[in-house]
Amino acid sequence: MSLKHTPPPAAALALLLAAFAGPAAAQSSVTLFGVVDVGVQSLKNGSKRLSLQSIDGLQTSRLGFRGSEDLGGGLSASFHLEGAIGPDTGAGFDFRRRATLSLASKELGELRLGRDYTPTFWNISRFNPFGTNGVGAASNLVYGFEGKSATAKTVIRSDNSVGYFLPGGLGGVYGQAMLAAGEGSTGKYEGLRLGYAEGALDLAAAVSQTVNTAAGDKFKVGNIGASYRLGAVQLMALYHVSKQQTRKQTNGVLGVLYAIGNGTVRASYTQAKLSDTGVNNTGRMLAIGYRHDLSKRSALYATASRVSNSAQGQFLIPGGSAVAPGESSQGLELGLYHSF
Amino acid sequence: MSLKHTPPPAAALALLLAAFAGPAAAQSSVTLFGVVDVGVQSLKNGSKRLSLQSIDGLQTSRLGFRGSEDLGGGLSASFHLEGAIGPDTGAGFDFRRRATLSLASKELGELRLGRDYTPTFWNISRFNPFGTNGVGAASNLVYGFEGKSATAKTVIRSDNSVGYFLPGGLGGVYGQAMLAAGEGSTGKYEGLRLGYAEGALDLAAAVSQTVNTAAGDKFKVGNIGASYRLGAVQLMALYHVSKQQTRKQTNGVLGVLYAIGNGTVRASYTQAKLSDTGVNNTGRMLAIGYRHDLSKRSALYATASRVSNSAQGQFLIPGGSAVAPGESSQGLELGLYHSF
Amino acid sequence: MSLKHTPPPAAALALLLAAFAGPAAAQSSVTLFGVVDVGVQSLKNGSKRLSLQSIDGLQTSRLGFRGSEDLGGGLSASFHLEGAIGPDTGAGFDFRRRATLSLASKELGELRLGRDYTPTFWNISRFNPFGTNGVGAASNLVYGFEGKSATAKTVIRSDNSVGYFLPGGLGGVYGQAMLAAGEGSTGKYEGLRLGYAEGALDLAAAVSQTVNTAAGDKFKVGNIGASYRLGAVQLMALYHVSKQQTRKQTNGVLGVLYAIGNGTVRASYTQAKLSDTGVNNTGRMLAIGYRHDLSKRSALYATASRVSNSAQGQFLIPGGSAVAPGESSQGLELGLYHSF
Repeated sequence: MSLKHTPPPAAALALLLAAFAGPAAAQSSVTLFGVVDVGVQSLKNGSKRLSLQSIDGLQTSRLGFRGSEDLGGGLSASFHLEGAIGPDTGAGFDFRRRATLSLASKELGELRLGRDYTPTFWNISRFNPFGTNGVGAASNLVYGFEGKSATAKTVIRSDNSVGYFLPGGLGGVYGQAMLAAGEGSTGKYEGLRLGYAEGALDLAAAVSQTVNTAAGDKFKVGNIGASYRLGAVQLMALYHVSKQQTRKQTNGVLGVLYAIGNGTVRASYTQAKLSDTGVNNTGRMLAIGYRHDLSKRSALYATASRVSNSAQGQFLIPGGSAVAPGESSQGLELGLYHSF
Repeated sequence: MSLKHTPPPAAALALLLAAFAGPAAAQSSVTLFGVVDVGVQSLKNGSKRLSLQSIDGLQTSRLGFRGSEDLGGGLSASFHLEGAIGPDTGAGFDFRRRATLSLASKELGELRLGRDYTPTFWNISRFNPFGTNGVGAASNLVYGFEGKSATAKTVIRSDNSVGYFLPGGLGGVYGQAMLAAGEGSTGKYEGLRLGYAEGALDLAAAVSQTVNTAAGDKFKVGNIGASYRLGAVQLMALYHVSKQQTRKQTNGVLGVLYAIGNGTVRASYTQAKLSDTGVNNTGRMLAIGYRHDLSKRSALYATASRVSNSAQGQFLIPGGSAVAPGESSQGLELGLYHSF
Repeated sequence: MSLKHTPPPAAALALLLAAFAGPAAAQSSVTLFGVVDVGVQSLKNGSKRLSLQSIDGLQTSRLGFRGSEDLGGGLSASFHLEGAIGPDTGAGFDFRRRATLSLASKELGELRLGRDYTPTFWNISRFNPFGTNGVGAASNLVYGFEGKSATAKTVIRSDNSVGYFLPGGLGGVYGQAMLAAGEGSTGKYEGLRLGYAEGALDLAAAVSQTVNTAAGDKFKVGNIGASYRLGAVQLMALYHVSKQQTRKQTNGVLGVLYAIGNGTVRASYTQAKLSDTGVNNTGRMLAIGYRHDLSKRSALYATASRVSNSAQGQFLIPGGSAVAPGESSQGLELGLYHSF
């Protein structure tokens, strides 16, 4: 939990000062929410086939508690506590998906403290049709980075973070800054995301740097993504770069969502190029799926995907055994999703 | 989580197809529920006496979240997340009592995915006056099976299960089928339960087979139970067989519930016969208790029981020390139960 | 969970008997409640400085579920399940803050079973301006006792407890008795607290004895505290003694709360004198802080404190590195608190 960096941005400081002037008009609401997502999955890595009960094919199964309080004068306090659950085995429960406390102002933005998603995560999640869940997720190739990114536990979230979010009403501009302490297995994180969403367009770029606590080297991430809506069609694109010492990985994603009746067809092409001293591997994933909404909160889904590798590549759909260099990985899943 | 068996029954498949046709009329409800059950217990195994603060004498202490959504057209989606808690030490919390997601049709029945109770469990629980809780529970002798059943973690529940429940309106007939993957410490499970409840009578039979993952041998269970209500009296009987390799255990239970004012007198006789190469042991448990309802949700209870063993038998009331061959085990408990 | 002591007090027994006569008029309510408290902290122990994201500076972050049922005739059943959470890392979740089931009568008092706070804890918590949270808490010096009290896990709470609380309406007199089993790492606990609160005055004394399970020696605690309200000012005083074998620690605390607008100024002086064979150490802590209420449920706070030691003393503000004998320890924290 050690935190040895520069003070929070001036806007956050102004937010704290504004809080001291506000009157006290408490109005409360606590919401219990969650997702349960269970299915069956078939994976074929190389020649090895594995069938299993899978979870989280559409969204990660979770349980959470959140609430906010209007403090008057445009100020509010809010909390968000959310943890993953495993409906296949009954596993759980902590709040490691998100555990934050916020002080927000309509004019000045939000100061958010605790364990939260990193700015660079959001572009991976938002700008591909499968998000970060299931056999078709772009993250299957992004998270890989052949283990090197694991030394920085900030690819998705960071402990001990101090975050700042721009307020609404900036003509479509949105943004997030995050500073987090380096301690234990979590490296010191600094990240920034800036976006623009107006009408059919959503466009955002993010950069981050995490100091590898063990070795002291830096894990750097940069990405830019966009989506554009054309009637029933939504197009998406993402470019993502991961670097650590001599190793570098670039990912490109092209995707499309097509709304049809109560359903949505989803398709994407994801590429990964990994280079290091004597290493030059490429992986490609094609994914197609269909989500059928039974209601606003329940859906059936099916997804199929295939990862092919260059001669020495070992990219794969996670969950099964490893692939030998150059082997392919295939996944098929069918599931039921419900949120509450 | 690997699942390498036959596809779900045709009815379940029809259910999935029906879901694709349904319109979307979401209506939600989430319920927080639980039980806290704490008491004091005195156990005497052989000549060793142990007094302790006990829990779960009437029902297992728990906390859960459940909800359902009407999808229209007789279809509904529902979830159930429930975990044990330990009010004596504050222990908990996961969802290993039950973590399921269901898609149900009034006409076709329910498809249930996740961690759930096995079909064979329900007869043990339903057809004896003490259920599976406290010093008088028939399960004290059933679960024993001298450790062999522990290799199959499916005596009560199974991970990774795909279950199917018959719909209502079948003239009193009810039923459950379950398939579950074999992986890690959980063996592959196949089970079936069929029952008939009409008026005063409730009758059910169940069979199951679990492949012992480690040794590959099969753990087989079969049982049949019934209850019959005669005014203030409810009679119960259960016959249960457990088999694994050369080892076999048969259990017989006779029980009675007698409603008197705000209370219920409970009594049962449970027998266990265990045979194996060179083994031929018998255990007998007599149990009597009284449950006094303070309301629909709160009760005081007292239960006394005694297990006697044949010359080499080591059956006992769990929670204390082991008994030497032929020794007896006695239990007495007094507790307070509250559900919410 | 073993419990080998005298039966509960006669009043508690009468309570159980009264319960048997009561009718059944169920009326339920379940409340979800909690606290999220996150801040930043700077510690300086000797010459070592540490900055970190801190939690629980004002109150311990928590999540809980509680409810009560009116059983009619002045009787009620209630439960309380509460566990700590760590918003800095998402850690949690169990019910080890409190897990109790109660049967209470307006006339006879409350019988409470499970894991609960010990009688001696309450005076430490109530009779100093910083309670047991943050860099200014009196408990920083009380809990120390140089590790010896850790052998008795009952300084704050006890597992397996049977507690009795006096009813209201005794002219300001209140009281708590607790018996708890000795098993595993928790020693057998016997404690008593008696207090008087009327108008501006609150005064209470408590004693306890815990048998150190491992070594068999006894850990004894006695304390007396008071608070007195004079308009906007509340004065507090606490005297606390801890003894184990040849070791003895006495703590004295003087404190003041001063309400000013939407805020409260808090200040205290805490002393610790530790004596043992060849040991005679003194630690002194000065603490000052300000709590600014944004509403009834949200607050900003700042606290500064300094611990100085006699030549061989090693008292400190916990959370950082150890101090060398005679070194001082300083802490500064700024935080945001929200309850729901």
